[in-house]
Amino acid sequence: MTPLFRRMTICGVGLIGGSLALAARRAGIVGRVAGLGRTQANLEVAARRGMLDIATRDPAEAADGADLVVLAVPILSMRDTLEKMTAHLAPDAIITDVGSVKQWVVRELEPVLAPGMALVAAHPVAGKETTGAAAADADLFQGRRVIITPSARSTPDAIGKIEALWNATGARVVRMDPALHDAILARASHLPQVAASALAAALADERVGGMLAAEFGASGLRDTTRLAASSWEMWRDIFITNRAALVEALKLYGSTLAEFQALIESGDMTALEALFDRGRAMRERLK
Amino acid sequence: MTPLFRRMTICGVGLIGGSLALAARRAGIVGRVAGLGRTQANLEVAARRGMLDIATRDPAEAADGADLVVLAVPILSMRDTLEKMTAHLAPDAIITDVGSVKQWVVRELEPVLAPGMALVAAHPVAGKETTGAAAADADLFQGRRVIITPSARSTPDAIGKIEALWNATGARVVRMDPALHDAILARASHLPQVAASALAAALADERVGGMLAAEFGASGLRDTTRLAASSWEMWRDIFITNRAALVEALKLYGSTLAEFQALIESGDMTALEALFDRGRAMRERLK
Repeated sequence: MTPLFRRMTICGVGLIGGSLALAARRAGIVGRVAGLGRTQANLEVAARRGMLDIATRDPAEAADGADLVVLAVPILSMRDTLEKMTAHLAPDAIITDVGSVKQWVVRELEPVLAPGMALVAAHPVAGKETTGAAAADADLFQGRRVIITPSARSTPDAIGKIEALWNATGARVVRMDPALHDAILARASHLPQVAASALAAALADERVGGMLAAEFGASGLRDTTRLAASSWEMWRDIFITNRAALVEALKLYGSTLAEFQALIESGDMTALEALFDRGRAMRERLK
Repeated sequence: MTPLFRRMTICGVGLIGGSLALAARRAGIVGRVAGLGRTQANLEVAARRGMLDIATRDPAEAADGADLVVLAVPILSMRDTLEKMTAHLAPDAIITDVGSVKQWVVRELEPVLAPGMALVAAHPVAGKETTGAAAADADLFQGRRVIITPSARSTPDAIGKIEALWNATGARVVRMDPALHDAILARASHLPQVAASALAAALADERVGGMLAAEFGASGLRDTTRLAASSWEMWRDIFITNRAALVEALKLYGSTLAEFQALIESGDMTALEALFDRGRAMRERLK
């Protein structure tokens, strides 16, 4: 079988990039795999774990003749990374990414493509607490959703190939407009992050009678603030690049919280039960 | 060794009441154990699991001569339950409870005590997703905090005995003023509940382009909304009985959320990073 891609270059061999390299190799759909990294230590882990044929910190060397580029670096580093590579890629290379925001990525990357190249932006909705090539896992995407957001520079052929790549990892592929993606993820992913970070920040130094309130929290407080431990580098880029949709989601949350507060204050237990039950029903649907 | 209590009556043989019966028996600090229940089915589970010598739905029979009463029923049912029992208890009986709110409990129960009785309100900060006698576990309180809130009707002897009871379960006992308890728990426990319920309620029916946003959430959304599945019966009583402290905690959360929203809108990444880091540092202290 001819592999789907002769040479795949993964930019950023972390949890997501590394897991994709492992899954694609196992499925036999890529020829050679090159990895572009920032630190020698992480590249060595990746090479030792058999993810890469070529491990380098030089964009030109990583790009050399590749017909697939996967940008798995922070969103605000994608354009710069791609600019250093385009001249060295195959003239019909397909560019994709794994970022959590899609309109910004499409707008930033399309002007950088050479005429014969295509862009198919994508977002695997998967993650673990861990990071780096050491945490990569060929089964990470099994059963997870991957959202593909075709745009002006996506050819039908390129869309088909990127979908085939993700299908081969065991993911469930969904197609969506970039703006719709950003509005949905602002609610389902970026909003919970801010809700958790704000709860943790509110309680960080909150003392009553000299005692730190957070010390009396149990598993409920730990669950609700778990996301607050996330990496600032990743979230900074999301806060910058999905600002409008996230602010809209925060307004929705703020008004529901205000509704809870008003009903608790007024003691309207009938209306409060209905609101509480709406939350419980949603949570039960999530399993 | 003479047991600490001749006869302990547990009102509400659920997760907390049942676990306390098991732990106290194992430690050999109680003579006979009676359980007052609402349903025959749950009482039979408790009896079969060896928690009880007497299992009944009749308050007078449950009370008969007891020198310790543990109220493990919802907060708003405590007064009524105790009123039906006082005439049948030992004249020097000690009354305690396991409720999540303490000022209300003290105010409601003290007027019901006969002259020789003492009240030592308490709150074991422990819980599991599960409920009922079937879920009871003799090790539930091991290493957990139990907050004792002495008040006007707590004698030094009664305080010492209730502390000995909880120490025997492996819990770490802390003494605190009832008002301080309520202010701290409003922040560390009742606020996370509302934050999670409001997030789940906000997303329950939130559609973008016809798609349900919550369906695209991953483990972060699940963690942050886990508490939303809690029982309304238990939380209704907390919302009613700790209203003022909870509203104060909600205002603190609301203003921190508004701070996040303003910084995301203005794009002030230096200030946003400082706020995000405050949350991350708090989360890391929680482990």
